[in-house]
Amino acid sequence: MYRVIMDAFGGDNAPAAVVEGAVKALSRFDDVSIILCGMENTIREELGKHQYDTSRISILHAEEVIDCHDSPTLAIKRKKNSSLVKALEAVAAKEADAIVSAGSTGALLTGATLIVRRIKGIKRPALASLLPTRTGGWLMLIDCGANADCKPQYLQQFAVMASAYMQGVMGIKSPRVGLLNNGAEAEKGNELTKAVYPLLEEAPINFAGNCEAREILSGDYDVLVCDGFSGNVVLKYTEGLSATILAMLKDELIADTKSKIGALLAKPAFRRMKKKMDYTEVGGAPLLGINGCVIKAHGSSDAKAFSSAVMQARQFLAADINGTIAPAIEALPDLKD
Amino acid sequence: MYRVIMDAFGGDNAPAAVVEGAVKALSRFDDVSIILCGMENTIREELGKHQYDTSRISILHAEEVIDCHDSPTLAIKRKKNSSLVKALEAVAAKEADAIVSAGSTGALLTGATLIVRRIKGIKRPALASLLPTRTGGWLMLIDCGANADCKPQYLQQFAVMASAYMQGVMGIKSPRVGLLNNGAEAEKGNELTKAVYPLLEEAPINFAGNCEAREILSGDYDVLVCDGFSGNVVLKYTEGLSATILAMLKDELIADTKSKIGALLAKPAFRRMKKKMDYTEVGGAPLLGINGCVIKAHGSSDAKAFSSAVMQARQFLAADINGTIAPAIEALPDLKD
Repeated sequence: MYRVIMDAFGGDNAPAAVVEGAVKALSRFDDVSIILCGMENTIREELGKHQYDTSRISILHAEEVIDCHDSPTLAIKRKKNSSLVKALEAVAAKEADAIVSAGSTGALLTGATLIVRRIKGIKRPALASLLPTRTGGWLMLIDCGANADCKPQYLQQFAVMASAYMQGVMGIKSPRVGLLNNGAEAEKGNELTKAVYPLLEEAPINFAGNCEAREILSGDYDVLVCDGFSGNVVLKYTEGLSATILAMLKDELIADTKSKIGALLAKPAFRRMKKKMDYTEVGGAPLLGINGCVIKAHGSSDAKAFSSAVMQARQFLAADINGTIAPAIEALPDLKD
Repeated sequence: MYRVIMDAFGGDNAPAAVVEGAVKALSRFDDVSIILCGMENTIREELGKHQYDTSRISILHAEEVIDCHDSPTLAIKRKKNSSLVKALEAVAAKEADAIVSAGSTGALLTGATLIVRRIKGIKRPALASLLPTRTGGWLMLIDCGANADCKPQYLQQFAVMASAYMQGVMGIKSPRVGLLNNGAEAEKGNELTKAVYPLLEEAPINFAGNCEAREILSGDYDVLVCDGFSGNVVLKYTEGLSATILAMLKDELIADTKSKIGALLAKPAFRRMKKKMDYTEVGGAPLLGINGCVIKAHGSSDAKAFSSAVMQARQFLAADINGTIAPAIEALPDLKD
């Protein structure tokens, strides 16, 4: 049985969507049990709205909630009775195998590092997001925001971790790893990427060279490695630019009658397009490098997204991703900075 | 008369598109004269295909061509008889006021810096691109690739230069300057952006705070300041992601008959959309900080794009952008690194 603890009070739609997502996950998988962490009364009330296998859901009571306005470090240190801290403590104490939270990203990062701790040898845990590619697959973008300033070795470790994930969870035999860069040629780059390039050549991964931003979603890469500042730009711009383009197109589609009718007829195509870009199918963003399975669900996750995040945690555990990462990291030379 | 020299042998469609663009520009503006730089015979041949005011076009013969495979620095130093070097020398010698080139970006950057030289006090010239925003305006992205590694003061200078441009050329009274960052709050960022923030507060610009990548094209900013690595990511991803989304949508639009008919009817909307995103309307990317007007035209520029680039050079000169930049830079404290 894979034991997943869910921060019932993290995210825009908490706790209703978390509880509904938990119930959905139980009906999808026989080998999962869920602990809902947060205010017991409220959780019980939400649970009362659903039918589920009571033997596989339990509650871990927590009085407090960490919200996005809290400073991450202070919140983790001071809000000892928050749903997030208690859930992370359960993972650290091996009372749960995985945590799913849609709460403050900063608090989850800080909390996971301080409470669950890093895998031995890992310099910095990294947040990894999955983006849909042009060819119908998924690209793992790592780091997409945990580390704004990176040293070369961090990116080498990111590549190893994401490769293990894409292999174990997404079933890709030999994930092609690209290095986000400002040119395709090996000698291109800024100080960081120039130093990272040879480290990726030495790493036990399938290094596919530099990836210019134009090619990010081409389908030619399964993993894209970058510092957390650039990764954050790519992640948020993917969201923002997609929305901008579709909104601009919508403006034009309602600007004349013929186009309007055309748009109505083409609705199924737009719907399929939306589904292709739907992150709720794939779960959340794993925080890789932590001594446990940590899944950051999107802040606006609905029940389906939460159940996908549980599925993702289950696959992470079933494939023993950390069991693959740990020896691979130990085998790499430590560059000491 | 504004004297614009064009590198007739730069770009995918050179020399035909350059020559046609020059002729187009002459018919659009009375106060422009053009020098076409490159192999005289070929240029004469191309000119023979058009009718134009012969008193306003001249040719500066150059034997060699710098291509994208040449190393920029070596090419500038060794290919003394190339169309690019000769054109830049003409600007340096004040025989031309502006240069338009669609050739190698690296060679243009290096050549402009070495031959035409920087405005006094400018640490690093920067390449600035214009992106269409959600609200129908334009955003100047600076630096979009000239400087992969930046010091804080560079970005302060970029902000001053781009503000001068958006004011003088695009007619925006008080351009709103955003700092590309990984969070909206003032204290967010990597080492670089944290150091840049107070410098932008002190600069004589309309600083509108941090801009998350989600908001790049929102229309809330007229200038977006960033290091050249991130800017290159944003610029190329804008191109790549737009193409990906429209291609994915196209795939879906032809996947069922109803959508196919819908797409046919909605063609005018798609056409208007394309026009909105059309860079050929706005010209090229100015290289700001050089002691002259340097316009990098898109490599795939057609005649219209070249004539827009000439228009852009004309506006740059008419508004005396460098006359605004120079004293503003001199008034800023020099941080010495």
